Amino acid sequence: MHTPQGKSRESAAQTAADILARLRSRGARVHCITNAVAQNFTANMLLAAGCVPSMTLSREEIGPFVAGAQALLVNLGTFDGERQVATEIAVQTAAKNKLPWVLDPVFVDRAPPRAAFARQLIGRRPPVVRLNHAEFSTLAGNAPSREAAAGYAREHRIVVGLSGETDLVTDGERVAAIANGHRLMAKVTAMGCAGSALVAACLAVEPDAFSATTAALVILGVAGEMAAEKAAGPGSFAAAIVDALYTIDGSALAARAKVS
Amino acid sequence: MHTPQGKSRESAAQTAADILARLRSRGARVHCITNAVAQNFTANMLLAAGCVPSMTLSREEIGPFVAGAQALLVNLGTFDGERQVATEIAVQTAAKNKLPWVLDPVFVDRAPPRAAFARQLIGRRPPVVRLNHAEFSTLAGNAPSREAAAGYAREHRIVVGLSGETDLVTDGERVAAIANGHRLMAKVTAMGCAGSALVAACLAVEPDAFSATTAALVILGVAGEMAAEKAAGPGSFAAAIVDALYTIDGSALAARAKVS
Amino acid sequence: MHTPQGKSRESAAQTAADILARLRSRGARVHCITNAVAQNFTANMLLAAGCVPSMTLSREEIGPFVAGAQALLVNLGTFDGERQVATEIAVQTAAKNKLPWVLDPVFVDRAPPRAAFARQLIGRRPPVVRLNHAEFSTLAGNAPSREAAAGYAREHRIVVGLSGETDLVTDGERVAAIANGHRLMAKVTAMGCAGSALVAACLAVEPDAFSATTAALVILGVAGEMAAEKAAGPGSFAAAIVDALYTIDGSALAARAKVS
Repeated sequence: MHTPQGKSRESAAQTAADILARLRSRGARVHCITNAVAQNFTANMLLAAGCVPSMTLSREEIGPFVAGAQALLVNLGTFDGERQVATEIAVQTAAKNKLPWVLDPVFVDRAPPRAAFARQLIGRRPPVVRLNHAEFSTLAGNAPSREAAAGYAREHRIVVGLSGETDLVTDGERVAAIANGHRLMAKVTAMGCAGSALVAACLAVEPDAFSATTAALVILGVAGEMAAEKAAGPGSFAAAIVDALYTIDGSALAARAKVS
Repeated sequence: MHTPQGKSRESAAQTAADILARLRSRGARVHCITNAVAQNFTANMLLAAGCVPSMTLSREEIGPFVAGAQALLVNLGTFDGERQVATEIAVQTAAKNKLPWVLDPVFVDRAPPRAAFARQLIGRRPPVVRLNHAEFSTLAGNAPSREAAAGYAREHRIVVGLSGETDLVTDGERVAAIANGHRLMAKVTAMGCAGSALVAACLAVEPDAFSATTAALVILGVAGEMAAEKAAGPGSFAAAIVDALYTIDGSALAARAKVS
Repeated sequence: MHTPQGKSRESAAQTAADILARLRSRGARVHCITNAVAQNFTANMLLAAGCVPSMTLSREEIGPFVAGAQALLVNLGTFDGERQVATEIAVQTAAKNKLPWVLDPVFVDRAPPRAAFARQLIGRRPPVVRLNHAEFSTLAGNAPSREAAAGYAREHRIVVGLSGETDLVTDGERVAAIANGHRLMAKVTAMGCAGSALVAACLAVEPDAFSATTAALVILGVAGEMAAEKAAGPGSFAAAIVDALYTIDGSALAARAKVS
């Protein structure tokens, strides 16, 4: 395990800026299976980033929607029968179309059936799994650390995006630590879900899942810092981070990215 | 096909102002079958316009809710079995109670089963169908234009509200072109859905569906321009357009309406 | 029926401040069965108050989620089969775990099956029922008044939180009248639902249901007044009340609480 060649702070900011430019120019379609709490905010965050979100869960329709998208998000929040069926069809469609997807195993630490479903999905090799410390501990059976995350990534041949005070991204070989973000981000519901959607968006325009995930989390963290400068609390912050994601550019990333 | 007598810019603004005043004074109930992404924003837009929204989809309840409403919105976004059943009951109730309704065939260009369902609903003569260019092309089998929209309106005996850079409203005889609006409106999820809900709201207080649809789109477009002057991006814009819809008045409409 | 000893304006503000401090320090988990329109706003209001909201409705999962929570909200808006099943499991789990819960019988005045379900739930003794005048009249068969609310509270051995121009809280013996709030609160969808969620949050940290309910409605009303000073309409108000709930403190409560 090593910090990869050239992945200095400057080059991480540059890669994020390149991926952001592609997000803005390509209008990638991102299909999201996500919880009802998160749908509106996630859609607005994706639109602000330049993407075209879709959210249908209907079993008759989700196949064509996923097949017409460039990336897929599977978020397990407000998990139910309809979403389990939708997920099965969506993951099969993604595999058939070689579409990248992200798994966000929300709250697997709170309900055993959800953890079992998440494990089954990880066996189907999502390019990226993005999760927090409690979720990681439940799935990996280990306290979160650089080594544990890298080991889990190697074992399952996935990229792990582990959010926390400092976010960690690893594919088992490379590790990036991202120290951007602001404490108000934890005070807005669905911020993590929107972050995972942003990872899916970056996967739509960047084939290297490690770079895409790192870029998404840097962009989100920097947008959060920009938003905090305008906000009077979590309500105005939620609007301000959408504004920031819409206005953020390469120079903001170059000035603020904290990646090591 | 002709631009109707008296439908000059000034009279269109005046009609919109009259309808807005009725919205404010009557507190019309508008029942919405809409997608989960759009429900909260749609409800807040209707409240800001002076209406009382309701959103239940339960088959046991939707009949009484629609029967107690003054207008109905049927939006096909996040289309599923529950919403199909709800729609059937709601449309029957609307027909029985002579209640005006609006169909918004969201994303029919993306999934064939949805297009088939939309066609069947259009056969049941919604007073207004509001849709974008891609949706129109899918349903009408024609590129969108003044002539194609008017032809489609005549064929199905509906009013067509075709949103785009310039919005077109036509009942097959009259055509209004509305050049209001702002590009940030396309960056807020469910803005189109909220626009269709506003059409339903205007139908609740104005029996002429052409005038009601034109008024709704003028009011929405002017509110969007007012909001853009306050906004730093799509997040603050989404809040500002709700504020604008709450504060907009006849003089703002007179000063800003661009209808020809 | 009497105004209880020591429940002067000052002591009500002090009790609310004490409960607010516990909300901030304990990070109570509050599980919400609520309508799709309200989920996002409710979650953000609870986060702003210092709580950890969860919202799952899945029959496989809601048991563990409720068992791991410190309070439960059952809101009947967008009532459907899934939510009926979820409610049954949740209420049983709450009873088994001696968990406090709040019933918000949204729109029982609009649909008879919902009123029947609400009556059945009230028979299972939620510590608090929070409702508006139309909902009270439907369930109690009486016009709302101090006496009618207190009688209903005694009859069902519940605390009644009756929202209106002045909010009334009563356990049948004690009555508090709360004159805080702002008219823009009625222009934001799900404000009442979020208020009921805040009652559940206060119940999680205060065993006396009368004090918890009074505190929640005072905190919400004062936050509404603070938000109105920053808002240009209901859109900015919705963000500002979340900010206010995040920043409100004992001195704001002492200065503004209007409880008699």
